[in-house]
Amino acid sequence: MTTRQPVLRLRAGRAARRPDSLAVEEPLMVRVGGEAVTLTMRTPGHDFDLIAGWLVSEGSVAVPGDIVTMRMCKDEDNTVEVSLAPAAVPPRPRAFATSSACGVCGADSIEAVRTAMRWPVAGDDTQSDVGILSGLPDLLRSEQKLFDRTGGLHAAGLFTATGQPLVVREDVGRHNAVDKVVGSALRAGLLPLRGHVLQVSGRASFELVHKAAAAGIPVMAAVSAPSSLAVELAEDCGITLLGFVRGGGMNVYTHQERVRVGPIPRQRELT
Amino acid sequence: MTTRQPVLRLRAGRAARRPDSLAVEEPLMVRVGGEAVTLTMRTPGHDFDLIAGWLVSEGSVAVPGDIVTMRMCKDEDNTVEVSLAPAAVPPRPRAFATSSACGVCGADSIEAVRTAMRWPVAGDDTQSDVGILSGLPDLLRSEQKLFDRTGGLHAAGLFTATGQPLVVREDVGRHNAVDKVVGSALRAGLLPLRGHVLQVSGRASFELVHKAAAAGIPVMAAVSAPSSLAVELAEDCGITLLGFVRGGGMNVYTHQERVRVGPIPRQRELT
Repeated sequence: MTTRQPVLRLRAGRAARRPDSLAVEEPLMVRVGGEAVTLTMRTPGHDFDLIAGWLVSEGSVAVPGDIVTMRMCKDEDNTVEVSLAPAAVPPRPRAFATSSACGVCGADSIEAVRTAMRWPVAGDDTQSDVGILSGLPDLLRSEQKLFDRTGGLHAAGLFTATGQPLVVREDVGRHNAVDKVVGSALRAGLLPLRGHVLQVSGRASFELVHKAAAAGIPVMAAVSAPSSLAVELAEDCGITLLGFVRGGGMNVYTHQERVRVGPIPRQRELT
Repeated sequence: MTTRQPVLRLRAGRAARRPDSLAVEEPLMVRVGGEAVTLTMRTPGHDFDLIAGWLVSEGSVAVPGDIVTMRMCKDEDNTVEVSLAPAAVPPRPRAFATSSACGVCGADSIEAVRTAMRWPVAGDDTQSDVGILSGLPDLLRSEQKLFDRTGGLHAAGLFTATGQPLVVREDVGRHNAVDKVVGSALRAGLLPLRGHVLQVSGRASFELVHKAAAAGIPVMAAVSAPSSLAVELAEDCGITLLGFVRGGGMNVYTHQERVRVGPIPRQRELT
């Protein structure tokens, strides 16, 4: 998942040539029933988790048995052939499928996600302490083996409401890191992820909140800022969305009833 | 491009409810000749630049006249109708178009980009001083009006080799920020961008180096880490790729002949 490469390092008044570790990025082609359904750039490793999680977000699968087989093609690099059970819904390219009379807007996108949710989280009465939530980025970071070597990978981690880590995954793409986490949970029979918290290393976009919604995750936390549509989607789907979770503090954007505001850490704020 | 939203702010031992600025994220549908060709999540603003730059990356257009008209649809939100000149090549969904006998791998991806390059940069004899290059992130940052308010936007900037800024754009998606910069340059008749430097706020992926290659940009600089495939593509296409440009230092990954290593700033290194 990392590779070594010579680099000219210019720093603090000195130039030096030395090896540097890079995060590996390679394409991955996914075929379902012989048909190519997606091509993504990803960091190799946990490919079956990645695909399983992507299929959850697409609304195709919900239980481990929905995926009958996944196998790496022998004849073609970076290509995985998937066969789905009859109960599963084969994914299809969605980007161009819109023909809604009311056009393309954020409200349409939110409505599409909400309609497709298998496991509404609105009734999920999970609660977590602000002290536990504020510690998740450090727990995530401590599991980021590849970041230490490359300085450049996104991560996603799944935690219980009491801060126990279940699975952490890294990838050059932040959506891939979340797919790998959700796919790992699907394959372990853990979906829907009621009572869990998804912590991501970067920002919170519409796409990432969508993935949390598709997996039934009630709390999503980001180290950096959310977008407007991420907040709107979280509000509408009943997801608690936290942003700027860093330095002991955080912003609670939606559904604050799941955050137990006891003593707030007095740690120094990082910027 | 930003919106206000009430947020529960938990920090330094205190809880307070106050308004927070969010970067706007909304879908954008692009139709070419009546056919939907892409749907992307972007920060509204400079939409025509975004589309023009995306068309450059797709290999569809090369001069301003290749785009005859772009207009916002009156009947549909966030939808732009484009008409291209006969000389332009209409874009097509490429993700599933692969049928190469040698499969899907990084080498195939690099070969596809190199074959499609209109303006090879290998012969571009641009040179820039390490002191100028190390100052570009601060110049970029100083132009990021929206980041200051939201803390969460990617940026891309186009500079001359002597550090003069031409255009800076921000977006929730880093590929969109680069598309907006390249599209602005196309519409100003500046392509190919020989002698220029593209500075991006985050990491360098395969996709971003591809966009630089498609616009004929000889030097690309990232504040954070590049991926393995970004470095391989830059090496192969003749692009100088810089990473970790911060705190007065940088790593030069490829084609270091364009970096004039004079005195290296002795500034304190940030982490």
